[in-house]
Amino acid sequence: MNCNQTVICGEIINIGQLRYTPAGKAVIEFALAHHSKQVEAGIQRQVICEIPAVALADTANMISTLTIGSLVKLTGFLAKKSRISSQLALHVTHIDII
Amino acid sequence: MNCNQTVICGEIINIGQLRYTPAGKAVIEFALAHHSKQVEAGIQRQVICEIPAVALADTANMISTLTIGSLVKLTGFLAKKSRISSQLALHVTHIDII
Repeated sequence: MNCNQTVICGEIINIGQLRYTPAGKAVIEFALAHHSKQVEAGIQRQVICEIPAVALADTANMISTLTIGSLVKLTGFLAKKSRISSQLALHVTHIDII
Repeated sequence: MNCNQTVICGEIINIGQLRYTPAGKAVIEFALAHHSKQVEAGIQRQVICEIPAVALADTANMISTLTIGSLVKLTGFLAKKSRISSQLALHVTHIDII
């Protein structure tokens, strides 16, 4: 029941301030604009959405060096954005520049 | 830039009414409770979240036969829940009963 993996491509449209957790770990929030064509019930359809994302440690440091408009492929897992928010966010564990 | 795939396991906690689109296609909304351990920045952490999901056509018909508490593995893509909602939902294209 552990399976929870998302792979999604898009354009970075927002990069928050690099912060540090109480334990001293780098953390950054950012947003991805995703625009693609997907097949649903046998019919191709457009998908346009914004994905809230968060990254920690080295991945966070790497993202903080990117610029708005960077095209990336994100790999990670879905979880709540934070302990106090029920909104879903992609917790990014790997990032590829496209 | 088309990549957009999510695979996630969990327990079905809510199944909406089976409805039909104006084009006569079956559609159903449901929710998945996901509870797992994931590795983030080298540390294993708990993930507890609810995933809003939607399915069309045969997948929708199949989900409408399931009961609350069913354990499933969902495959699909992330998109807005509906045209008028910015909330993300998993658009399920394949479902495995676990």
